[in-house]
Amino acid sequence: MQLYSFFNSSTSYRVRIALALKGLDYDYKGINIRVGEQRADDYRALNPSQGVPLLVEDDGTALSQSMAIIDYLDETHPEPRLLPAEPRARARVLELANAIACDMHPVNNLRILGYLKNRLEVSEEQKNDWYRHWIAEGFGAVEALLERYGHGPYCFGEAPTLADCCLVPQVANAERMGCDLSAYPRVMAVYQHCQRQPAFQQAAPSRQPDFTA
Amino acid sequence: MQLYSFFNSSTSYRVRIALALKGLDYDYKGINIRVGEQRADDYRALNPSQGVPLLVEDDGTALSQSMAIIDYLDETHPEPRLLPAEPRARARVLELANAIACDMHPVNNLRILGYLKNRLEVSEEQKNDWYRHWIAEGFGAVEALLERYGHGPYCFGEAPTLADCCLVPQVANAERMGCDLSAYPRVMAVYQHCQRQPAFQQAAPSRQPDFTA
Repeated sequence: MQLYSFFNSSTSYRVRIALALKGLDYDYKGINIRVGEQRADDYRALNPSQGVPLLVEDDGTALSQSMAIIDYLDETHPEPRLLPAEPRARARVLELANAIACDMHPVNNLRILGYLKNRLEVSEEQKNDWYRHWIAEGFGAVEALLERYGHGPYCFGEAPTLADCCLVPQVANAERMGCDLSAYPRVMAVYQHCQRQPAFQQAAPSRQPDFTA
Repeated sequence: MQLYSFFNSSTSYRVRIALALKGLDYDYKGINIRVGEQRADDYRALNPSQGVPLLVEDDGTALSQSMAIIDYLDETHPEPRLLPAEPRARARVLELANAIACDMHPVNNLRILGYLKNRLEVSEEQKNDWYRHWIAEGFGAVEALLERYGHGPYCFGEAPTLADCCLVPQVANAERMGCDLSAYPRVMAVYQHCQRQPAFQQAAPSRQPDFTA
């Protein structure tokens, strides 16, 4: 199994956490999305969506989209399960995971910030305001979901789920951008708990072969 | 069962399609997100994420996030299945659905276009360029996925899936914004096929109680 990944990509980081939690080995293939390697012809042949992450199985089957990859890993390597079998528990995990995957990450990723800066020529301050605005909206919702439905030390109890796979990279991203996250104590408690676990540590950007400071 | 929905919300439209395909009855509750009804206190009490759609079951259980809602409906009302049981087929459906749900819809929805216009004060032309840019990036990827893995008349064969639930509202949205979609013949063939099906027709914005021209 191969994972095409960029060390600092939140969506790649999600999948790396899932792979580490399941104890699955893979070859790491770094794709530097900062310099556009995802648009190179040979990578596009592999992934017409031109993004990371991409999971390639030994028979050549390639799968993009982090949420699809993690669901697939959960179907094919169900131990430990990252999506509960019980429908309501499963729904809560997917609700929180998608609050991050659909409402937060897409509007603050590299391509969006790049468009704001290069095409719309917004100021650095405007770009940072944009980033912080969606972080506040998003983590406000996630904090409220955790308050209502969560129970620690992970988002939903004693075992990690897809929700934690999404939460950790999003917090790491916001911290890197200098956001004040003190208004989200439940989010931060989950984050800090996860950061102490070996699988989450192993998946961290700084531990990847393509990491650069 | 109640569905809080806005007629023109693509994520609400996805869930309406799923409910119609499964033949499930529900009370329609219109939330006008154009005037901010999602931020009213009584709605926030129900949905801390302050968005639509929201599914509320007869026992009061409330679930947000369209992708979580459809998965939940598929778990609890599996006929017809919108996510295949076979892992690779399921993965392809989720890959295409998330290419729309994560890469397209979030960056072009009402709140983003509103921020561009009101906070960043971009011109109408710049706003339209933004919209068209992400539609072209997104449908370029979806077209490539359909070319590689799809087989009609739906995205993946003879039966509708979550991928179709996501594709139809996104095409409708792009058409409403005046995008030229002729470069995506596979996307459009699926769209046109779906538009002829009663369940998709029943879920259309113009057929909802809160529709306004």
